[in-house]
Amino acid sequence: MTIPHPPGVHPAWLPPEAFRALGSRRTLVHGAGTLVDTVLDEVAQAGVRHGGHLVHQEPGPAAEQPAVAGEADPGAEAFDLVLALRGTAPLPAQAASVEVEFRQRYAERADPLGDEGFVLARHGDTTVLLADAPNGLLYGLFHLVRLGESAFGADRPVERHRPAMRVRMLDHWDNVDVHHRMGQVERGYAGGSIFWQDGGPRRDPARVRAYGRLLAACGVNAVAVNNVNVHATEARLLTDRLGDVAAIAELLRPYGVRVFLSVSFAAPIVLGGLPSADPLDEQVRAWWAGTTAQVYGTIPDFGGYVVKADSEGQPGPFAYGRSHADGANVLAEALAPYDGVVHWRAFVYNHRQDWRDRSTDRARAAFDHFAPLDGQFRDNVILQVKHGPMDFQVREPVSPVIAAMPATRLAVEFQVTQEYTGQQRHVCYLGPLWREVLEFGPWGAGGPTVAAVAAGSTPGDAGPAAVAGAAGSASAAGGGLVAVSNVGDDPFWTGHPLAQANLYAFGRLAWAPELDPSAILDEWIDLTFVPSSTADPELLRRTLHEIMDDSWHTYEQYTAPLGVGFMVRPEHHYGPDVDGYEYTPWGTYHFADRDGIGVDRTRKSGTGYAGQYPQPWSDVYESPQRCPDELLLFFHHVPYGHLLHSGSTVIQHIYDTHFAGAERVAGMRQLWERLSTAGLVDPELDARVRERLDEQLRGAQEWRDQINTYFFRKSGVPDARGRRIH
Amino acid sequence: MTIPHPPGVHPAWLPPEAFRALGSRRTLVHGAGTLVDTVLDEVAQAGVRHGGHLVHQEPGPAAEQPAVAGEADPGAEAFDLVLALRGTAPLPAQAASVEVEFRQRYAERADPLGDEGFVLARHGDTTVLLADAPNGLLYGLFHLVRLGESAFGADRPVERHRPAMRVRMLDHWDNVDVHHRMGQVERGYAGGSIFWQDGGPRRDPARVRAYGRLLAACGVNAVAVNNVNVHATEARLLTDRLGDVAAIAELLRPYGVRVFLSVSFAAPIVLGGLPSADPLDEQVRAWWAGTTAQVYGTIPDFGGYVVKADSEGQPGPFAYGRSHADGANVLAEALAPYDGVVHWRAFVYNHRQDWRDRSTDRARAAFDHFAPLDGQFRDNVILQVKHGPMDFQVREPVSPVIAAMPATRLAVEFQVTQEYTGQQRHVCYLGPLWREVLEFGPWGAGGPTVAAVAAGSTPGDAGPAAVAGAAGSASAAGGGLVAVSNVGDDPFWTGHPLAQANLYAFGRLAWAPELDPSAILDEWIDLTFVPSSTADPELLRRTLHEIMDDSWHTYEQYTAPLGVGFMVRPEHHYGPDVDGYEYTPWGTYHFADRDGIGVDRTRKSGTGYAGQYPQPWSDVYESPQRCPDELLLFFHHVPYGHLLHSGSTVIQHIYDTHFAGAERVAGMRQLWERLSTAGLVDPELDARVRERLDEQLRGAQEWRDQINTYFFRKSGVPDARGRRIH
Repeated sequence: MTIPHPPGVHPAWLPPEAFRALGSRRTLVHGAGTLVDTVLDEVAQAGVRHGGHLVHQEPGPAAEQPAVAGEADPGAEAFDLVLALRGTAPLPAQAASVEVEFRQRYAERADPLGDEGFVLARHGDTTVLLADAPNGLLYGLFHLVRLGESAFGADRPVERHRPAMRVRMLDHWDNVDVHHRMGQVERGYAGGSIFWQDGGPRRDPARVRAYGRLLAACGVNAVAVNNVNVHATEARLLTDRLGDVAAIAELLRPYGVRVFLSVSFAAPIVLGGLPSADPLDEQVRAWWAGTTAQVYGTIPDFGGYVVKADSEGQPGPFAYGRSHADGANVLAEALAPYDGVVHWRAFVYNHRQDWRDRSTDRARAAFDHFAPLDGQFRDNVILQVKHGPMDFQVREPVSPVIAAMPATRLAVEFQVTQEYTGQQRHVCYLGPLWREVLEFGPWGAGGPTVAAVAAGSTPGDAGPAAVAGAAGSASAAGGGLVAVSNVGDDPFWTGHPLAQANLYAFGRLAWAPELDPSAILDEWIDLTFVPSSTADPELLRRTLHEIMDDSWHTYEQYTAPLGVGFMVRPEHHYGPDVDGYEYTPWGTYHFADRDGIGVDRTRKSGTGYAGQYPQPWSDVYESPQRCPDELLLFFHHVPYGHLLHSGSTVIQHIYDTHFAGAERVAGMRQLWERLSTAGLVDPELDARVRERLDEQLRGAQEWRDQINTYFFRKSGVPDARGRRIH
Repeated sequence: MTIPHPPGVHPAWLPPEAFRALGSRRTLVHGAGTLVDTVLDEVAQAGVRHGGHLVHQEPGPAAEQPAVAGEADPGAEAFDLVLALRGTAPLPAQAASVEVEFRQRYAERADPLGDEGFVLARHGDTTVLLADAPNGLLYGLFHLVRLGESAFGADRPVERHRPAMRVRMLDHWDNVDVHHRMGQVERGYAGGSIFWQDGGPRRDPARVRAYGRLLAACGVNAVAVNNVNVHATEARLLTDRLGDVAAIAELLRPYGVRVFLSVSFAAPIVLGGLPSADPLDEQVRAWWAGTTAQVYGTIPDFGGYVVKADSEGQPGPFAYGRSHADGANVLAEALAPYDGVVHWRAFVYNHRQDWRDRSTDRARAAFDHFAPLDGQFRDNVILQVKHGPMDFQVREPVSPVIAAMPATRLAVEFQVTQEYTGQQRHVCYLGPLWREVLEFGPWGAGGPTVAAVAAGSTPGDAGPAAVAGAAGSASAAGGGLVAVSNVGDDPFWTGHPLAQANLYAFGRLAWAPELDPSAILDEWIDLTFVPSSTADPELLRRTLHEIMDDSWHTYEQYTAPLGVGFMVRPEHHYGPDVDGYEYTPWGTYHFADRDGIGVDRTRKSGTGYAGQYPQPWSDVYESPQRCPDELLLFFHHVPYGHLLHSGSTVIQHIYDTHFAGAERVAGMRQLWERLSTAGLVDPELDARVRERLDEQLRGAQEWRDQINTYFFRKSGVPDARGRRIH
């Protein structure tokens, strides 16, 4: 196998230049297996390009044989780098001292590294990377790529790295058939699917393998290959079209990425020909068991199922008067013999709500449906909860479900694809948003964070330290982090080249949620743009930070204010339309009138949603005085003159942030101009980014003017600074 | 040829029962030709069913031969009905006295009947119908069907009937290929196209012929067979797919319906391979001439072209710096040798307007573009003007273009398909709307009406009498009436069975614009439901009138108020969305704020649109005091407290009409219930109408609540009657 370089496709964070430090070393690889072959390929190819040298030592009896790429007896050679699987004798001599130090530091643990962890150290002139399994070796290799020259400098004491989350998954909302409304990729902003095209597999193995490689290099280990809205053709991936899924699994396997399938809850009917999909029906159970056995017969390392049930028209257990626990458990039971899991989405609400009925609150729905079921799900059910109660808005409170189900494995779901955050035409670096969610303490300061819950902690556990990535302990019971992918067949993968950073950041945060988003951006910049190879590395790095670091807040500034959400054009969700969803059945309202705006979700006078939180948040959100400004309109209906903590009124805040947001986008565009002028970026990438920034500026000004005009017309309050409102 | 009865398709206004009076008579038909054959078929088939008797007498030498269906010498037989072509000797004896009377009364005219007129009289026991051409005989036949038994009662003096408009055309916005957004029929609400299906001809000749027959029976004589938005496949109907058009022409020819084609102005490029479509380019002229010659070689009675140019993205002469006169004339020149005409649409405006720019006014656009070109169009150019300045809203002023181009042949365009008037889910009988437009006097009382202009009058002509259908003189120079068809492959033709009345009324008004819409409805009821054959004819007739007569006003009551227009969901245009178009580039705004609403189109302080009208309307519309209530918000931005002529304030009018409109729909539904209960209508039709009335009620309530809530939130003014506003 060679390293995939699909022609004409941007290398993202794995350009050949990023392998210079690694590729120029003398390297010994000790171990065997598919993923060790991947490691060998990477090192060999880097070596060819950058003048390095590779020796492969097979463990056990084979160790005496000459290595694949080396010429000399490995024992006699001085290596700069040793990558070795522990527990396979004989460990290369150069790794011995590291092994000793590691055992001393982590003696207390039975399984200190797990399947995916690794140990890194540098003693003397040799950098040593040890792992217990090939996956760990591969993750370690990409860690070395990130470190670059610094991996080969001063001595490093032993560092243990292992992922905070066991599940680090990307869901592709990709359709096999082009959907008449949603196209090839639902909420996709980067062209077609890399997996599917016009009703069948795309047959572009290099692209899929390159994707797997990018995922491994940022830490993602699972992919669901089709849309959670499972249409007719896609349903059949489970049965007669399973071969298409197996082909993808084959391509991703060398990168430690397991494949999941979104399945229809009605599969026993539509595929099995049964009269019912009742989860308590014996025939249905048997059908799922038999079907799942066939799946594992074809794909032994298959990950499991993803299910959107009783949601936005998808079938589910409600049709049979069964609970979501019943529904999830019948699939889990079928998957259990193979260690498969079912990701059951908690995104269940009434999407045919009457806007006239102010008592129904979509934000309440997931908690109302699922909290009572805590403890009823099988161990291999992962309840997949969107991070906020609504739908991936630029600002939402953390979902109260996360604190409500201590006896259930919870996965937190993010959206890398920028459905509501600029659709990859706007720069919106989401690392800071996700970080804020991950470090949020549902039970207040001192309790576990959201990251800890996703990693398997419960309220009784210790605080945030429980998931301190490199050092913490990953709980097998955690549901992990899941996100909707932003990748398509676009040459830049993500439409907007800078949107690659979101994919990268998601992987990194799923591995190590404590990482600083700005530091992640630094990693991404160093890998993707390799500033050291440009004329002005500092300008490049600084400018990218200036554009991206705060771009989420900028986007928030010029779109829906103070957590109220939506105000987007219905269906496609791009661009402003303040009343677009106001009188629809979708449950997403702002209730603006001539006097005020916001949704009263208090216990006292509103929908009671604030009461779904434990203390302290229940009381904080209940109070218009204590509620954080950025969530004020999510929880309260207030007059336009309401004074924020910032000292501004709500209406003046709306004007100020919208003028400021559009100005900041103009600034971003000027900043990029510096890079263009200095010729610091590839011309094609430059052209693409410029085109998108032009559109972002137009879009931001449109948002500014529509929002300001709307609220000026409604409130009658003039801008205190006398700026132009149309 | 037999009379087409497509299986499973509703007969609309030509059920066999409607032919009882005609079919039970002894009839002599004198004449020859394709359309005479059609007449013979109709009479023969009616006779078979109802016991009548038909003799055909060929004119000239053939007159001595035995008739087709008769057995005896026609001269010796007593006929109840004689249908005869004048000017072909020998005229049957029974027609002679009518011929004499006719010559006495209409001696002054050179061509008293034209191609399509007819004379009707009853002398003694014989009803006589004379025409100068077979088309007139066919129209006369359907007139007899409408008259039923009353055609055979007391003596009738000679009556002359001829159409007010020479052009009575339906435009089909039908696509050959299913369009990804617009489907098979753009703005179609009755299923697929009767002409096209999935990229090719539908090959349903019986359906097309049945359609032609219905058109002839209401007076329509031309059809454009494809969408004015001409996509790639449809463009080729002009050249290599012309055979598909010829096939339709063949089917419609027996009904006197000529076929038109919508063509792309860019055809010389996309079909001809020329580098340009510049209308002044010799190659382009030659291409149009050659292409048109081929069209007439294939379809000798081809009607001409329909062109939407420089409008909503369609190509046009602006690309070459040429005027619309240049553009239209190049096509007209190509058509002239064959007496073809080009229908050039005046629907040209900037659909990429900036909503922030209040000086641009879409309502002005057609006048601004076309009025300066008056006198520059060739004689066989018909400028096709939408009846209002915007786009077929439930209420608009009459387009000022109609008064602005005395030296141009103008056609007035209506929309039978209910794009903005309930999409054939709501009952909305449009006869009264069209009648109001047709009788409007652009130069005030005493001057020609809109109908007269469409019939060819100019401001110097006498008043409305100029187009008094049966007696008036049709000017060859008139552009006529054109409408967008509402027909599809639906079993009821029009989705809502009661929407058939709109198609019928359009044809009748194009023939005789002075007809009372309620009388037209009576004709339609008598033909379609044949009340005389039901248990309670009075209940049936009264109920249909109660439901339909005022349904346009009812629809207006519960939708956009006081002429302001739009407020519909973007794109599909069904259901309310007050701000749906408010911040878009489409130029359709209401400018509602907390204080007031409406568009200032005055000369004094607005866009100046009111100044496009001649007196008295220019001053009437300029004045918020004199402007009719129903157009107030089209011309003026007024406070919610503004007092209407009705005595109500604007805001209270909004509340009152919206509550009333929804209540009236509830009433319509109850009224229909009476018919259902009494079993007075066909069960399938009954079921369809009930389903639609349910949806209309839901829709009317939704409109009521959204509009009322929107304006209550904005104005803060409570309903004076304290009704529930959400």
